[in-house]
Amino acid sequence: MKHITAAEIQQMEKIFRLNLVNSCTGYKSANLIATKSQKGNPNVAVFSSVTHLGSDPALLGFVTRPLTVERNTYKNIRETGYFTVNHIHEKMIEQAHQTAAKYDEHISEFAKTGLEEEYLDDFPAPYVGQSEIKLGCKYVNEYEIKENDTLLIVAAIEHIYFDEGIQMPDGWLRLDDAGSVAINGLDGYALPALLDRFHYARPDQEVKSFFSHENS
Amino acid sequence: MKHITAAEIQQMEKIFRLNLVNSCTGYKSANLIATKSQKGNPNVAVFSSVTHLGSDPALLGFVTRPLTVERNTYKNIRETGYFTVNHIHEKMIEQAHQTAAKYDEHISEFAKTGLEEEYLDDFPAPYVGQSEIKLGCKYVNEYEIKENDTLLIVAAIEHIYFDEGIQMPDGWLRLDDAGSVAINGLDGYALPALLDRFHYARPDQEVKSFFSHENS
Repeated sequence: MKHITAAEIQQMEKIFRLNLVNSCTGYKSANLIATKSQKGNPNVAVFSSVTHLGSDPALLGFVTRPLTVERNTYKNIRETGYFTVNHIHEKMIEQAHQTAAKYDEHISEFAKTGLEEEYLDDFPAPYVGQSEIKLGCKYVNEYEIKENDTLLIVAAIEHIYFDEGIQMPDGWLRLDDAGSVAINGLDGYALPALLDRFHYARPDQEVKSFFSHENS
Repeated sequence: MKHITAAEIQQMEKIFRLNLVNSCTGYKSANLIATKSQKGNPNVAVFSSVTHLGSDPALLGFVTRPLTVERNTYKNIRETGYFTVNHIHEKMIEQAHQTAAKYDEHISEFAKTGLEEEYLDDFPAPYVGQSEIKLGCKYVNEYEIKENDTLLIVAAIEHIYFDEGIQMPDGWLRLDDAGSVAINGLDGYALPALLDRFHYARPDQEVKSFFSHENS
């Protein structure tokens, strides 16, 4: 096995380090965050840091830098209080990746990429029309991570939209039925296929699959 | 499309809500966090919240509850300052899921599940022998997310181990070559396959694949 130490990571060329460190923590969620400025300019950008924070209340988090490339997203969220989270699907990966280009603030990535700007149920932020799972979110709080000047944004999930066929009777959304992708590092898009789903684990009891009918 | 509102989420039966809200944000990283208590008891548990926080310095984060099921992990990290992050691979999903069972503190999930307790380069926390990508991490800080009493743990990546063959010349680790999985909700394990990897996006320039040689 190759072994790399912290001292070696520090000495690496910048892009090499970015690629290695961004990929070593595992797959990341693949979402487009869409917002609108107070002046009405829409914005949409790829984020790989959207994470579940809690179910009751339903909260998610994502990490951003207040003063770098994602500043339009952050500025718009602080101006309006709202944003949407839209899954990236296998058919949208090129368009999604293109949103990472540094467009001027007055240019809409929707217009430039062919992603559809969609408004649902009077929500103030746009959704991505092509996305099969989308969330309407309200800004709740932010935490400054002082170790590297990033921000953890905490938001409440106010609306969930999805195709009814991907939900199992126990509430679970089967993401491979929706064609949602995952991100590998900064720029790799991977399509997962479900291997198995397991019942609640208990000590000294064999792990049981949801799909096994051996004992039924 | 099915539309669910925040008011409906609040009214849901608890397990249904857990399943829905845990799956709606997209795929999550699939890792085993391993620790050792001051008394020497090893512990290993599944976490789906490990996230990249920054590359320089190399930092990762994960979310935990100080007083619930993951308390052994948190307690051991605070006692010793160290833990490891070990990718879950397609051949380990049953063993990994079994670590979520509520074992007593003095019982080692390594012994109960057949996961191999491995020590590398005098690091104080155990690694998981079967994992093909593993990180040795040092606790740096924690942030209390007051909205739901969770903690964001921030840690420095001190060691990275992986099979040399999965690294591309630009530093990127190809996770499907390692067989790493992703988590769908609380209990679904999915195996991603790389669709494509794209070069840095620039305004008004077509997205270019790393694997396309049309223009070379």
